[in-house]
Amino acid sequence: MTSGKLALIAGGGAVPVEVARYLKATDRPYCVLRLKEFAEPELTDHPGYDVGLGDFGFIFSLLAQEACQNICMVGYVRRPDFDTLEHDAGGAAHLPAIQAAGRGGDDSLLRQVAHMFESKGYVIEGAHEANPQLLVGHGLQAGPEPSAKGHDDMVEAIRIANVIGALDIGQAAVVANKITLAVEAQEGTDLMLARISGLSPALKGSLADRKGVLAKVAKPIQDLRLDMPTIGISTVEAVAQAGLCGIVGQVGKLLVVDKTATYATADRLGVFIYGFDDSDSPPR
Amino acid sequence: MTSGKLALIAGGGAVPVEVARYLKATDRPYCVLRLKEFAEPELTDHPGYDVGLGDFGFIFSLLAQEACQNICMVGYVRRPDFDTLEHDAGGAAHLPAIQAAGRGGDDSLLRQVAHMFESKGYVIEGAHEANPQLLVGHGLQAGPEPSAKGHDDMVEAIRIANVIGALDIGQAAVVANKITLAVEAQEGTDLMLARISGLSPALKGSLADRKGVLAKVAKPIQDLRLDMPTIGISTVEAVAQAGLCGIVGQVGKLLVVDKTATYATADRLGVFIYGFDDSDSPPR
Repeated sequence: MTSGKLALIAGGGAVPVEVARYLKATDRPYCVLRLKEFAEPELTDHPGYDVGLGDFGFIFSLLAQEACQNICMVGYVRRPDFDTLEHDAGGAAHLPAIQAAGRGGDDSLLRQVAHMFESKGYVIEGAHEANPQLLVGHGLQAGPEPSAKGHDDMVEAIRIANVIGALDIGQAAVVANKITLAVEAQEGTDLMLARISGLSPALKGSLADRKGVLAKVAKPIQDLRLDMPTIGISTVEAVAQAGLCGIVGQVGKLLVVDKTATYATADRLGVFIYGFDDSDSPPR
Repeated sequence: MTSGKLALIAGGGAVPVEVARYLKATDRPYCVLRLKEFAEPELTDHPGYDVGLGDFGFIFSLLAQEACQNICMVGYVRRPDFDTLEHDAGGAAHLPAIQAAGRGGDDSLLRQVAHMFESKGYVIEGAHEANPQLLVGHGLQAGPEPSAKGHDDMVEAIRIANVIGALDIGQAAVVANKITLAVEAQEGTDLMLARISGLSPALKGSLADRKGVLAKVAKPIQDLRLDMPTIGISTVEAVAQAGLCGIVGQVGKLLVVDKTATYATADRLGVFIYGFDDSDSPPR
């Protein structure tokens, strides 16, 4: 699955850059299809092409020309306005189905695009498959060892986030002293963390006296090849700012962008980062 | 249970005022123990006394003197700082247990106070028992009839809010087009509604094109005599501002403060208010 030449369809942000670097460093054959307006400038250092979001005809011709059977779609893309989206002749054939899927939300949109590639025999790889180094490891990864309370909150935060995920509400929750301080829905993790600071001092921790854990998990219905829970330096900073003591994710289901710098930030700010698996669950 | 002379221990806000007015209008014997710094000025029009939060000795003597066996504790009270709380000799005896309970959060604190009264033979009544007029009725109460989509979102919002409540996370959720836009945890309903406006226009409604429903429910562990989900004019205004089309609560488990004005606001702003019970659930 993670062999053969890979076409990296790259949106914005650091993850596509880290995937490209890894492909280069490991000598895997690849080319980068840089999405115009989104892909990072650094990606022009890699073999590849600039493509528009609606240029499916061009994209398919490049995939054939480059003999890529595997595709990794990763990075930030602003949801297009389909009414005004520029597209080529190949795009015109695919846009109606993609546009219809878009009404079901971003997940549905991305799935439809993946389905379009798969229906033509291409194999979709997740960022974590194209670059396994992005995944969080098992156990304590950075920052101080969790206290007993921190460990309890970590277990409870994972439990709450998993229930929230199973309901398809969101990916994240914050628990302090076993009380759920905040739950992520459509606002996203950053805004959820930002509102912790406004809570009663009786509930939350502070920069000096940390309390509570952010859990970030994958929804059961989430296609991890298309969308992985992700943390980075800014997550660690926001968690520290919110007075929390740590971050927990599931082993194999959490990407850490810019891992060296992210873990160094966690060490510096005293935020633990922990990769959780079933062996960490308390006995029942 | 809702007979006999009632002592209304009144914090801030409109609910204690509405309970007092109802007791007066229905000729039930009562007196009001107005919590200093919190109770509304209007309550001085009713028979009663000003008492401090820590004056348990005085409160017990008033209950005996007024021959009240029933107590209703309602209204807003800012969590006291127990280290500096002024108290009388009777308070000194009870404060340690109450202070210990306070560390478990507001719910735990209020339960401990209720338990203290009950252990001496007093009967605690909820605001909805002392004034049943505060409760939402069954079915459409105000605003336009929900559309088919609005009805679907109402059913889903109730389902999500009940799960959130069962997890002891919070009392409220917002669902639009069957997607959970926001879930309330410790930040409260107002802040949850405020963040809807910041979501992608693809997800949320607008003032002109309403979409989505706020469900406000009771947690299963919630003692409704001490803490009831409550809406009022400001809730309706916030719901309209968030571009939602309606509010749904559970019959018997939602208080509507200032009901006439709240329902008039809902009519004016085009927000439906619906009292939901099991007969409204879709067949499975």
